[in-house]
Amino acid sequence: MSFNARLAEICYNKKSHVCVGLDVDVEKLPLLLRDTNDALVKFSKAIIDATREYTAAYKINIAFFEARGVDGWRALENVVEYLPQNVIRIADAKRADIGNTSRMYARAFLKELPFDAVTVNPYLGIDGIEPFIEDSEKGVFILCLTSNKSAGDFQYKESNGYHLFEDVAMKSISWNVRDNCGLVVGATKAEQLRRVRTLAPGVPFLIPGIGAQGGDLELSVKNVFVSNGDQAIFNSSRGIIYASGEKNFADVAAEKARLLRDQINEIKQNAGVHE
Amino acid sequence: MSFNARLAEICYNKKSHVCVGLDVDVEKLPLLLRDTNDALVKFSKAIIDATREYTAAYKINIAFFEARGVDGWRALENVVEYLPQNVIRIADAKRADIGNTSRMYARAFLKELPFDAVTVNPYLGIDGIEPFIEDSEKGVFILCLTSNKSAGDFQYKESNGYHLFEDVAMKSISWNVRDNCGLVVGATKAEQLRRVRTLAPGVPFLIPGIGAQGGDLELSVKNVFVSNGDQAIFNSSRGIIYASGEKNFADVAAEKARLLRDQINEIKQNAGVHE
Repeated sequence: MSFNARLAEICYNKKSHVCVGLDVDVEKLPLLLRDTNDALVKFSKAIIDATREYTAAYKINIAFFEARGVDGWRALENVVEYLPQNVIRIADAKRADIGNTSRMYARAFLKELPFDAVTVNPYLGIDGIEPFIEDSEKGVFILCLTSNKSAGDFQYKESNGYHLFEDVAMKSISWNVRDNCGLVVGATKAEQLRRVRTLAPGVPFLIPGIGAQGGDLELSVKNVFVSNGDQAIFNSSRGIIYASGEKNFADVAAEKARLLRDQINEIKQNAGVHE
Repeated sequence: MSFNARLAEICYNKKSHVCVGLDVDVEKLPLLLRDTNDALVKFSKAIIDATREYTAAYKINIAFFEARGVDGWRALENVVEYLPQNVIRIADAKRADIGNTSRMYARAFLKELPFDAVTVNPYLGIDGIEPFIEDSEKGVFILCLTSNKSAGDFQYKESNGYHLFEDVAMKSISWNVRDNCGLVVGATKAEQLRRVRTLAPGVPFLIPGIGAQGGDLELSVKNVFVSNGDQAIFNSSRGIIYASGEKNFADVAAEKARLLRDQINEIKQNAGVHE
C-alpha cells in the first residue's frame, strides 16, 4: 500500500487526524523523571502509551535527540522502535542534500530506523527528495509554507503570479507519482492553506503550529478539508506533551490528545466534509 | 576573533584554500580497511594526517555517519575531535528548522561537538539560521546556489530582476553583522559565482562541485577572488579521499590535496588577486 493510502486508512480507522510531536527536551520534562537514567525514553514511552488511542501519527523531532550525541541517538532508536504499528511514524528531520548524500539520510531514517516518512526541505529540488520516495511505502512531507515568523524571507517570493511556496505545492504534485508525497503547511498561515489545497489536491498535509505557536485550528481544518478524500494531520507537540509537569503528565497528555482529536472531527463535520 | 576573520587568517597562514570533504562511505573504503573495526575512524584519521599540511578546512558530511546509527555518531565524535586546531571544522549538515529546534541543532554541532561552522538551508529564513550565528566565533555557510542538477527547480525563480539564490546572497550580507556568515555556491555554477560575489562582497564562499561533480575550477577561482580580501574555500571529497583504493591511499590523497592547493594558488595569482 502506498504511503499516502496508508495514512488515509489509519486516519479513517482511528477517526483521528492528530499527530503528537515528540520534541523531547530534557529540561522540560516533569521533575520526577528529569534525573533518572534514560529520562528521554521513559518520558516518550509514557506519552506514547497514554496517547496512542487518539493519534494517527507521531512526529519525532530529531534535533532534540541529536543535541545529546550518542546517548541521544540511542534514545531515538529506542523511542521509534517503541511506536505502535497502526500509526504513521514521522522523522521530523528537515533533511535535503545532493543526491548521493540524501541517499545516506534516507538510509538513516527509512532503513536503519523504521520511520515511515521524513520531513524534507525543497531548496535543492527533486535531487534532494528522490532518495526518500523511491519506495512507495515510504513518504515525505515537503516544507511548503512553514509556521515560523521568518517564513516570509523567501517563501513569499513571487513571479508569474505564484509565490515560492505555491511553486513547491505544484511541484509536489508532479513528484507524487508513487502516491507518497505530502506537504508541510503551518497553521499560523491558515489563510494560505486553502490556496495550497487548491494547488495540491490529493496530497496529505502535515500541519504544525497549533498550540504553542498560536495557529488557528478552526480555519486550518476548514481550509485543508475541502473535498472528500482530502487528507491532513495536525501536529501538536508542546501543547500535549508538556501540558502538565506533574506526576499525572501522561494522563493530561492523553486528555489533550483526545480533545484535539474531537475538536478536529467536530470542525470537519460541521464544515460538511466527511471522509 | 570572528569566524570569518579566522577563516581568512588560516587561509593566509597556510597559503591554502583547500577544504577536504570527509564523505566517508564504508563501501568505498580501501579493501584493507573495510572489514576492520572502526574502519570509518581509521580511514578518516589517516586522511587527516596525510592532508592536514595542505588544507585550510575539513568538511564532515554528517549523513554518512548518521546512516550508521549509534556507531556512526560515535565515529563522528572521534573524527571531529581528531581534527587539528589550525583548520576550520565544518559540519556539512544542511540543517534549518523553526527557532527552538534549530537551537537544538546548533547545540548538537557547535557545543556538544566542536565544529566551527555548519552548513544551513535558507528556506525557513533567519529564524532557522540565527541560533547558529549568535556566537561570532562560530559560523554558517548558507546554501545559495547548489551544485546539483535540480538546483534550478526553485533557486532560479526570478522576481524584480533577482533570482532566489541572489536574494539569499543579499540577505547573507544583512545577517553577517557578527562577521560569521558565508555562502555555499557550487563550482558547477561557475558563471553565476561572479554575480554572487558582486552581491555578497566580503563573505567567504564554500565551493563544492569540483572533482567528481565536474565543476570548472579555473573559472570558479577567477570568479570568486575578484577583489583583494575575498575569501573562499574549495571542497573536494571523492576526488581526494578515494583517489586510490590501494594501500597508499593516504599518500595519494595528500598528493591530490597538495596539487589542488597549488592549482588554486596559481590560478589566483595569474588572475592578479593576491591576499
